[in-house]
Amino acid sequence: MTKQDNAKKLAGEASLTHVENGMTIGLGSGSTVYWMMRKLGEHIKEGLNVKGIASSRQTETWAAEFGVPLTNFHETQHIDVAIDGADEVDEAWNLIKGGGGALVREKVIADAAEKFVVIADESKLVSRLGDFHLPVEILPFGWEVTAERIAHLGGRTVLRKRDGEAFVSDNGNYIVDCDFGIITDAEKLHKQLKLLTGVVETGLFINMADEVIAGYADKAKSLKR
Amino acid sequence: MTKQDNAKKLAGEASLTHVENGMTIGLGSGSTVYWMMRKLGEHIKEGLNVKGIASSRQTETWAAEFGVPLTNFHETQHIDVAIDGADEVDEAWNLIKGGGGALVREKVIADAAEKFVVIADESKLVSRLGDFHLPVEILPFGWEVTAERIAHLGGRTVLRKRDGEAFVSDNGNYIVDCDFGIITDAEKLHKQLKLLTGVVETGLFINMADEVIAGYADKAKSLKR
Repeated sequence: MTKQDNAKKLAGEASLTHVENGMTIGLGSGSTVYWMMRKLGEHIKEGLNVKGIASSRQTETWAAEFGVPLTNFHETQHIDVAIDGADEVDEAWNLIKGGGGALVREKVIADAAEKFVVIADESKLVSRLGDFHLPVEILPFGWEVTAERIAHLGGRTVLRKRDGEAFVSDNGNYIVDCDFGIITDAEKLHKQLKLLTGVVETGLFINMADEVIAGYADKAKSLKR
Repeated sequence: MTKQDNAKKLAGEASLTHVENGMTIGLGSGSTVYWMMRKLGEHIKEGLNVKGIASSRQTETWAAEFGVPLTNFHETQHIDVAIDGADEVDEAWNLIKGGGGALVREKVIADAAEKFVVIADESKLVSRLGDFHLPVEILPFGWEVTAERIAHLGGRTVLRKRDGEAFVSDNGNYIVDCDFGIITDAEKLHKQLKLLTGVVETGLFINMADEVIAGYADKAKSLKR
């Protein structure tokens, strides 16, 4: 296992101290969440009684693999704790997410959760957001116009592709990856983007994280703000 | 033909004074647009050379029926004039739209157009918006949570249904019809709603209309603000 993988594993597993019997857990997406879910499955085999709400098809697959029972928003609108990774975490715990393409469902889940715990290996910790290009989910209809509007805010936009075709999110939308350089006012940028016609959601998670658990090669640590 | 139908016909036909040879026309949706397109088809048969971008499947059908050639945002990002109806038009020309369920594509088109002309029979003219329940397009994933958030802003929300099932928009989303009573600050409400996670777009069209053509039983009139 690489040092980074081990750091992800340690951060993911450490987040399970927030999980208690009877809880509904928001399950994020991505490689750090994978390790959390693997361990969660072990706890469930040992008798822990929880249900999860999955933020992506990949996460649903892992839930089946590790024996994590799933529920959905039709059955419950209350999530006790959501646990998810991030592509960047700044010092104010604002996040860029969406590298994996599940940013909208991840945000719906984090938003519905009483507590939102972010798990990230140390490479994701930054002083300012923006090195990682910001994913923005937009409607396919008129996406060319929407991308132009985003560019007008000062970003270079690239339509995300997979196998030569536009990448389609679980919600049936497109994603543009946007280079705004270093983002000095993340909240303002999020609002400007979200208010554009055709923009469904942005990968900026502002004032949402309640705890950040950072993973290092040999330990996990809950950060202080 | 009822008086109201005649008023719609007169308003729709009067809007064609804005249409010139070589233009790309944004084609709205709904019964007033129907009359505009029927007349537009006649002009095209007489030699007018224009292309349209359709905001709904229904409008695509009418374009085929009346011989209006269509283009799309892949071919052009420039719309010379968009012509569309409204469910309510207030004195500042702010609109409520979305009764027909095509509000998002209609807004993308109106937003991309150099000029946006609203056509409405006189029954749509109001002093304050809000008698007509505001349509808000939201993501199916977690819609229960999103509807609760909207209700928290002071609106009574009803998920739109068709044949007993949730109505699905052309973008694959749901629509909630929201009763906020009389809307005193439409711009503020639009922003509050649009910034909610899970909200794709609202039916409030603020500061978008460049001209409003009202239809009456015996005439159409371009309104003065």
